[in-house]
Amino acid sequence: MKKLNIGLIGYGFMGRTHSNAYRQVSQFFDLEYQPVMKAVCGRTEDRVKAFADNWGWQSYETDWRKLIERDDIDAVDITTPNNSHCEIAKAAAEKGKMVLCEKPLALNPEQGEEMVKIVEDKGLANMVWYNYRFVPAVTLAKNLIDDDKLGKIFHYRANFLQDWTISPDLPQGGEGLWRLDAEAAGSGVTGDLLAHCIDTAIWLNGPITTVTAMTETFIKERKHNLTGEVQKVNIDDACAFLARFANGSLAIFESTRYARGHKALYTFEINGENASISWDLHDLQRLSYFDYRDESATRGWRSIHVTDSDHPYMDKWWVPGLNIGYEHTFIHGIAGFLKSLEEGQKPMHPSFRDALQTQYICDAVLKSGVSKQWEEVSGV
Amino acid sequence: MKKLNIGLIGYGFMGRTHSNAYRQVSQFFDLEYQPVMKAVCGRTEDRVKAFADNWGWQSYETDWRKLIERDDIDAVDITTPNNSHCEIAKAAAEKGKMVLCEKPLALNPEQGEEMVKIVEDKGLANMVWYNYRFVPAVTLAKNLIDDDKLGKIFHYRANFLQDWTISPDLPQGGEGLWRLDAEAAGSGVTGDLLAHCIDTAIWLNGPITTVTAMTETFIKERKHNLTGEVQKVNIDDACAFLARFANGSLAIFESTRYARGHKALYTFEINGENASISWDLHDLQRLSYFDYRDESATRGWRSIHVTDSDHPYMDKWWVPGLNIGYEHTFIHGIAGFLKSLEEGQKPMHPSFRDALQTQYICDAVLKSGVSKQWEEVSGV
Amino acid sequence: MKKLNIGLIGYGFMGRTHSNAYRQVSQFFDLEYQPVMKAVCGRTEDRVKAFADNWGWQSYETDWRKLIERDDIDAVDITTPNNSHCEIAKAAAEKGKMVLCEKPLALNPEQGEEMVKIVEDKGLANMVWYNYRFVPAVTLAKNLIDDDKLGKIFHYRANFLQDWTISPDLPQGGEGLWRLDAEAAGSGVTGDLLAHCIDTAIWLNGPITTVTAMTETFIKERKHNLTGEVQKVNIDDACAFLARFANGSLAIFESTRYARGHKALYTFEINGENASISWDLHDLQRLSYFDYRDESATRGWRSIHVTDSDHPYMDKWWVPGLNIGYEHTFIHGIAGFLKSLEEGQKPMHPSFRDALQTQYICDAVLKSGVSKQWEEVSGV
Amino acid sequence: MKKLNIGLIGYGFMGRTHSNAYRQVSQFFDLEYQPVMKAVCGRTEDRVKAFADNWGWQSYETDWRKLIERDDIDAVDITTPNNSHCEIAKAAAEKGKMVLCEKPLALNPEQGEEMVKIVEDKGLANMVWYNYRFVPAVTLAKNLIDDDKLGKIFHYRANFLQDWTISPDLPQGGEGLWRLDAEAAGSGVTGDLLAHCIDTAIWLNGPITTVTAMTETFIKERKHNLTGEVQKVNIDDACAFLARFANGSLAIFESTRYARGHKALYTFEINGENASISWDLHDLQRLSYFDYRDESATRGWRSIHVTDSDHPYMDKWWVPGLNIGYEHTFIHGIAGFLKSLEEGQKPMHPSFRDALQTQYICDAVLKSGVSKQWEEVSGV
Repeated sequence: MKKLNIGLIGYGFMGRTHSNAYRQVSQFFDLEYQPVMKAVCGRTEDRVKAFADNWGWQSYETDWRKLIERDDIDAVDITTPNNSHCEIAKAAAEKGKMVLCEKPLALNPEQGEEMVKIVEDKGLANMVWYNYRFVPAVTLAKNLIDDDKLGKIFHYRANFLQDWTISPDLPQGGEGLWRLDAEAAGSGVTGDLLAHCIDTAIWLNGPITTVTAMTETFIKERKHNLTGEVQKVNIDDACAFLARFANGSLAIFESTRYARGHKALYTFEINGENASISWDLHDLQRLSYFDYRDESATRGWRSIHVTDSDHPYMDKWWVPGLNIGYEHTFIHGIAGFLKSLEEGQKPMHPSFRDALQTQYICDAVLKSGVSKQWEEVSGV
Repeated sequence: MKKLNIGLIGYGFMGRTHSNAYRQVSQFFDLEYQPVMKAVCGRTEDRVKAFADNWGWQSYETDWRKLIERDDIDAVDITTPNNSHCEIAKAAAEKGKMVLCEKPLALNPEQGEEMVKIVEDKGLANMVWYNYRFVPAVTLAKNLIDDDKLGKIFHYRANFLQDWTISPDLPQGGEGLWRLDAEAAGSGVTGDLLAHCIDTAIWLNGPITTVTAMTETFIKERKHNLTGEVQKVNIDDACAFLARFANGSLAIFESTRYARGHKALYTFEINGENASISWDLHDLQRLSYFDYRDESATRGWRSIHVTDSDHPYMDKWWVPGLNIGYEHTFIHGIAGFLKSLEEGQKPMHPSFRDALQTQYICDAVLKSGVSKQWEEVSGV
Repeated sequence: MKKLNIGLIGYGFMGRTHSNAYRQVSQFFDLEYQPVMKAVCGRTEDRVKAFADNWGWQSYETDWRKLIERDDIDAVDITTPNNSHCEIAKAAAEKGKMVLCEKPLALNPEQGEEMVKIVEDKGLANMVWYNYRFVPAVTLAKNLIDDDKLGKIFHYRANFLQDWTISPDLPQGGEGLWRLDAEAAGSGVTGDLLAHCIDTAIWLNGPITTVTAMTETFIKERKHNLTGEVQKVNIDDACAFLARFANGSLAIFESTRYARGHKALYTFEINGENASISWDLHDLQRLSYFDYRDESATRGWRSIHVTDSDHPYMDKWWVPGLNIGYEHTFIHGIAGFLKSLEEGQKPMHPSFRDALQTQYICDAVLKSGVSKQWEEVSGV
Repeated sequence: MKKLNIGLIGYGFMGRTHSNAYRQVSQFFDLEYQPVMKAVCGRTEDRVKAFADNWGWQSYETDWRKLIERDDIDAVDITTPNNSHCEIAKAAAEKGKMVLCEKPLALNPEQGEEMVKIVEDKGLANMVWYNYRFVPAVTLAKNLIDDDKLGKIFHYRANFLQDWTISPDLPQGGEGLWRLDAEAAGSGVTGDLLAHCIDTAIWLNGPITTVTAMTETFIKERKHNLTGEVQKVNIDDACAFLARFANGSLAIFESTRYARGHKALYTFEINGENASISWDLHDLQRLSYFDYRDESATRGWRSIHVTDSDHPYMDKWWVPGLNIGYEHTFIHGIAGFLKSLEEGQKPMHPSFRDALQTQYICDAVLKSGVSKQWEEVSGV
């Protein structure tokens, strides 16, 4: 058993999901490497200490620069707001640390390119936490596509719909709300939600080449919790775009935080010549599958309850019929990363490079929202 | 084209569905026989006249005995309350008329036996309107079973749940409410609703041999609209029973008019060694089908939208994806009856004899509700 | 009772649905006017005669010009391919006939404008058969919006997905296939399917002001059944567009005939400040409704089985829980038209003028598919 | 923070779920007591040692009698086969240990009564792991009933359907299969699956007074893995029963391991005068709720995605829209038990006494399966 000493930066919502993943992975996955929860870092000492105590982090730091300098840290995990990813990742890589980074990779493609360059130049293991790839039903979708069950792909559509910012009384920015602050987040739903849809899409269906987008900020001004003042809202509340994939298929993507009735409804559907697939996060354990090659009279969408032991990841958990949840995607993610460190394993995906592709697409989408033109995706 | 002159007795809810079926069948089905809406009979002249005018019945009668004596009537269709089925059917048969009778066949097995005897002795075409057999999805279920897709059957379960009699203010009996009057209806949910479930069950899964039942009348007294007085309620508001089929499978059946939230939720499910089937009336166009022989990773319940041209009856209607409704089951029923009259065709099912089997089972169920014992089904 | 003499032109799929509607409406709706199936017109005599016999048309014509000249025709109903709508409608109006026209109104806005002008100048009753407005669940959606249950609208999304043209062996044009022939149809999914989505959308959510679209023809050449030659396919197999409504809401629309697993999946969803609505044609009897004002713990999407007697149109049919189907939308449509003829009634919708709005939007969509720019919608 | 030293007996499937619960509870629940994973006990040393290492148990034993004698153990948790529950529980209680016991409580009511007596006589904290009470959606159902949202209850129905024993090649008994061995398990689906349904039912709807049951063993002989011989199967493969609750409502219950297509489909539905509730384990995060008091036109079954922070337990986990899974029910269970130890807290439910009620009902059910009579439930 080899130990991998982890240093976690940030202890918000993602700090919790990652901490839980580190605590859980070794009980369920049989791996050569075992993560050690060495240190967590946050700026407010009493809170980061309490967090460390609760989750079993062996120590804590209040300055991330200290953390990355510690010799007893092998891998740095970044869960801070998006505007700090690049700086921290580069500094950590400079010290020779492996880097795991929350999504989106960076604020923009330029930052992303720098991040990719340094981890690749230094040959450092790296990963970006696009966790939805690791939902068993989503991985099953990937397997079905890789087995060419679908044939030529004609259509891809994905949504990420939420409804938690409809009230004009909600402030922008501040405690637990940095995702609403353009400075910290870089963008609104595009980087936060569509980035997930795009990561899955290019994993399942290959590169996107061109996009045309429409963005909107429904509530133009909100109180900013950090400044205390009513300020212009600079994030996109909603974004929809049309796209074309390199394989000739067409796509529509949409995300919003103003879709009353949807809490976190990430859905996608893929239509191929021979079969189609659809999935949604609210019922994450199910995959819908239609196969035209089924006998005509009994052809129909199959609702696959992805809990059998021959379904992806499910041999690690309970018995058929019994669900796992959201947090397990992070456990699967870190399991994959640890596995990739074993001798002879392939590198982990999604890597920084993979996530950079998503960054290029987000960038083209945001650009198109302003230019009102079709935009080519860079880096394809 | 041969004409079949129809005389309809009764012009309530079922009088409407049958009239509609007679009006519609020839436009959609290519048959040797065409029904002619010769006469309708009801006791209240102005109302039966208005009904005849509305639906295109060529004449009307106010005494059913007159109707069955008319030489220009080939077939008598009975839609009056249950307590009149036997008398009318026997009299019509005596005159040599074909007889179509609403379900349940009769008030009890004795009446049913007499009815079967006379139509069979006289060789008269006959049918009972258990219309749910003719839902395309239900017929598809029958076809799948006949093709032995399911293998050995282990379980059958069926419900018929309604919620329209929960209010204690609802009267029993009277205009439009004879189903709540034990004298007219014979029983409550057992004859009205479970009879449907039983008819489908024995059609799909063969004879039922023994039953044990529980019946309940939740509201013990209601105003009777005919007498104007508050009287004891003699119908069963709810009935559930366990049963065994001759083929070794087990069954549970339940019906009630006190299931808040269900308007007319007739559902059934059959579990076989290799495959299972389920259906419900609220979404009547769909059949759910699970086939264990599907590839393991993509096995799931298929939701079959039974609207393709190779699905039962659907080549007569529109195009794939477009639904038909409740009333079409009656059109399919009369189409089947007319077809059975063509030379060399097999007799129509469900016949009086088929419906008598259901009568025996209902009888055993009601008897068991009182005896609180398992009861053998007669006539098996 | 007043008679309205109908002359139907065309006896294909829509000829059937309209004939059925004329045959059925008077039995279920109590109206001052009763349609009389006076004459049907088609070019092939033996076939139009057989059609007339089957449906009860009193006479037939083989030249539509003759039909519109007949004094015994009050209203002309056009179900021929799209490229003949304008000529026939104008000629009929010229003779002072009321005009009912299948959708889309015309091949282009110019034709549509001429058609609107003449029926309005002459004060002739008119209607376009956008039948999905008359699905009870869709009308219920309209009522909920008119009652302001949703509050400010943020999002509209609609799809019309089919899968019947995926095979490259399917010919374009010819018997039953004029929808695949650009000359006859004008466009592909845009005019055939998206036109439905657009009509519903502007009825529910008001004018659309700008669009940006993407169109695709997946199979570039097909055999043309009329010429017998392999020819370039000129229709759009798929079309998706982004749009903005005048009320500030955002929309995405998509249609294709290459969505494996979907037969005729017309769906829409509307997200408002207080409530959301969704519907799909495969389960047309249900409306999904989410109301944020429900008590927090029990808030959820409600699946409304739109079959109660206080639901739109449903008092005309059966009892709660029992479904109607696709064909009923046409019966409701003609009932509405007949009602509009009664003294003091409001004009029928969708009128030619309403349908012209849809035509403008389709035109902007097709134009944007070529220009790859956002296009303003004319006539708003 | 107070420590509670746990000794776990058994390390099979339930040993895993409990170990996980002990490892997780303190990170998510803020409680006075923290469980300490002191010792685990199993008969095969290398395996129990590996189990202890994997899950973080501080020590292990190979003889349960040793474990219960250890002074450093406060609470004994029993996850061994059913036929050992009574002996171990009594011995542990004799030593003054708190006892947590897997369900069903015992092999029969006599054993159960002894177990209740000793823990109550000695005033020891106790609990039985009927974990499905702790599904957030099920707890929400309980809350709705306690708030009297449903009004008078008319009907209860529950199923627990599986399909994993259909193959005749499956052995009875042995490694991982003691549930199929009547000697170890006591009964088949009745104790294993229906016990869950019954526990929930009496929690939600009060005492059951009488039952009539039907049991079946479809495959009469199977190879026994312990003896190596083909032997008579003594467990019930399927069991269905009718029941009456003390509150006047009627019930049907069914369980089987021969329902092709269902992995672990535990479902229940309750119909009350004003509202109804339904739930199923395959989609455990959702509760269906119908409220008749909703406005008529928009009344429908609500699909509640039970993931909001004001839903039971969900404030401990992630954010709205994100699912938890099966294993979390055990975490909630132990959290409840630990909470009950805090000063002034009410005792934990389900207690041994609660579970004894379920035992009485199972006993009456099994007795009725043999007697073929209605049986009174003891102890009510």
